[in-house]
Amino acid sequence: MTTEGLPDTALPSSALVVGCGLIGTSLALALRTHGVDVHLRDAVPGVAEVAASVGAGTVDPVDDPELVVVAVPPAAVPETVLALLEEFPGAVVTDVASVKAPVARAVAGTPGASRFVGGHPMAGTERSGPTAGSALLFEGRPWAVVPLPESSEHAVELVTSVVRAVEAVPAVLEADRHDEAVALVSHVPHVVSVLTAGLLASAPREHVDLAGPGLRDVTRIAGSATGMWLQILDSNAGAVTTLLRSLRGDLDRVLDALDAGGEVLAGRLSDVLDAGRAGTQRIPGKHGEVRTVSASVFVPVDDRPGVLSQLMADIGDSGVNIEDFRIDHEYGRPVGLAQVEVAADRADHLTSSLTARGWPAYR
Amino acid sequence: MTTEGLPDTALPSSALVVGCGLIGTSLALALRTHGVDVHLRDAVPGVAEVAASVGAGTVDPVDDPELVVVAVPPAAVPETVLALLEEFPGAVVTDVASVKAPVARAVAGTPGASRFVGGHPMAGTERSGPTAGSALLFEGRPWAVVPLPESSEHAVELVTSVVRAVEAVPAVLEADRHDEAVALVSHVPHVVSVLTAGLLASAPREHVDLAGPGLRDVTRIAGSATGMWLQILDSNAGAVTTLLRSLRGDLDRVLDALDAGGEVLAGRLSDVLDAGRAGTQRIPGKHGEVRTVSASVFVPVDDRPGVLSQLMADIGDSGVNIEDFRIDHEYGRPVGLAQVEVAADRADHLTSSLTARGWPAYR
Repeated sequence: MTTEGLPDTALPSSALVVGCGLIGTSLALALRTHGVDVHLRDAVPGVAEVAASVGAGTVDPVDDPELVVVAVPPAAVPETVLALLEEFPGAVVTDVASVKAPVARAVAGTPGASRFVGGHPMAGTERSGPTAGSALLFEGRPWAVVPLPESSEHAVELVTSVVRAVEAVPAVLEADRHDEAVALVSHVPHVVSVLTAGLLASAPREHVDLAGPGLRDVTRIAGSATGMWLQILDSNAGAVTTLLRSLRGDLDRVLDALDAGGEVLAGRLSDVLDAGRAGTQRIPGKHGEVRTVSASVFVPVDDRPGVLSQLMADIGDSGVNIEDFRIDHEYGRPVGLAQVEVAADRADHLTSSLTARGWPAYR
Repeated sequence: MTTEGLPDTALPSSALVVGCGLIGTSLALALRTHGVDVHLRDAVPGVAEVAASVGAGTVDPVDDPELVVVAVPPAAVPETVLALLEEFPGAVVTDVASVKAPVARAVAGTPGASRFVGGHPMAGTERSGPTAGSALLFEGRPWAVVPLPESSEHAVELVTSVVRAVEAVPAVLEADRHDEAVALVSHVPHVVSVLTAGLLASAPREHVDLAGPGLRDVTRIAGSATGMWLQILDSNAGAVTTLLRSLRGDLDRVLDALDAGGEVLAGRLSDVLDAGRAGTQRIPGKHGEVRTVSASVFVPVDDRPGVLSQLMADIGDSGVNIEDFRIDHEYGRPVGLAQVEVAADRADHLTSSLTARGWPAYR
């Protein structure tokens, strides 16, 4: 088959999704909305049937799918990809595992390698299983597309078309670079969040009671299920270890500085604090652009239905666009503190506009 | 003077606020709303005058204030408290420094010790200076009240009355316990956030571009100004060091597990991940109660004024109360993903209610 003469957004006419968890089912649902003939398979009896029952496709066997998507648990991905490349010699095969080097190493040099392109949709919810699937799951999310050196142009184009069709944003990069990147933006932050939250486990109640929004932010992702994370950290142990060792070196510098105290502390710790501040500035902001300078407006609000919608309506009337919005529930009281982040040069206008409408807004 | 026969919410009739930054000015403004005669003083010429100009009080000298509030930078607190206890032999003196042992050590055993009670309002914005002050700043925030063993009952009652009057929530605890608590819930999370963000400073652009909401959460507090944090970490070096060493031990266990891989990794890392998960469960939730079981409903929204207010209105109409609300701006697109956290048993109802109103909501 050839892509000649076809637009590069041509989707496969048929696809087999192997593994009907949250990601597999969501992708199947999204492909169905584009009219793709989707077939479903799962190693656990009954799971594919559940996915089919929510409209993700059919459990009927398929002879010659154009695309095979491997959405099985991370540890099983390499062997499953190899088996499916053999079972379907005409198909392009992709996977959705969050670590790419193990599958790239397994497939490289095999006869089917030109038909394989790895993938990693950076999306998910705290739920799992086929009934949690949603065709909207990938909308606006980065989706790493990870070709092998042998991957054919057709295979890369087909997988990229699928990524675009489900409204994700493709980012093409090589397996090792991908794994270093996710170690940095996902795996190491997860470990750090877990370690910080772990300190709370044995702390006195009266200490934990003083927790504020900063602690909640840092530890939020530590609350997720452990099973998947064991597989992720195991399969990306190299890249994660490199970064965690670097972080441990920085931590030792902090401990040395705290031990020295006074002027020495100030000198050594300034560098660490400044590097952290510089790091936060590099995280892409709204629309993937460089982070805009924003400012917060605070509004204490009663914690009952309808109050937030009135606040949002009044913000809308002020003509100021919301960059970010958060609610902190206040300690021991039925009151929330809304934090509205807006462009820095609009904060004063929003504050006076809300004040004029009777809100106790402040900056 | 005696508190006999007075309600325990009796406020001072006159107060001197020394240090007119964000916290000092905000407290002065809040006391003014209760009719307290507030006098202002600042070591930097002109600053007290600015605070007075926004309605925080008068710069006229005061002979015999009932209450003196020390709101100077942390490093200057102990000497300033001692000087003011001497200057105003009839006054109760309190401070607002975020570390309590240094001032407690300095004051304990001095003639004025019975008139001193430490304090720490856990509030702030990213702004500073008198013009950033707001009478509402302390509403619903924890405020640690930290007596010395010698502190008189009257002094503790007066300070606690002030805390209640500005609508903060008093938590009485001893200086060393306070400093251990804030090391746990504030100082160590800050260091950890800074170290994680520091890894981003020198990372390749294409790696940082894959950042998602998890990384943003973990690194958010690392963006704050460094000067104040140097003083805080220096003055609480002992408690911070103890916890960071403990975290370093856990980090080494993670590195060992990653090095071992496979079954050994799974065994060792499960404990660490489980402890983290257990730790997040201990953070007080809404209304200071035990965290309720909540679930997220996701809604992709156009990023323009008015859309969020419509969403909030429709959530209000559904009768489901919002536990938490966040917006993630999607990568490279003018679209946001609203994450609405609600009680777990209300999530399905909210999802179908929003879907019926035309929102692409999913769980």
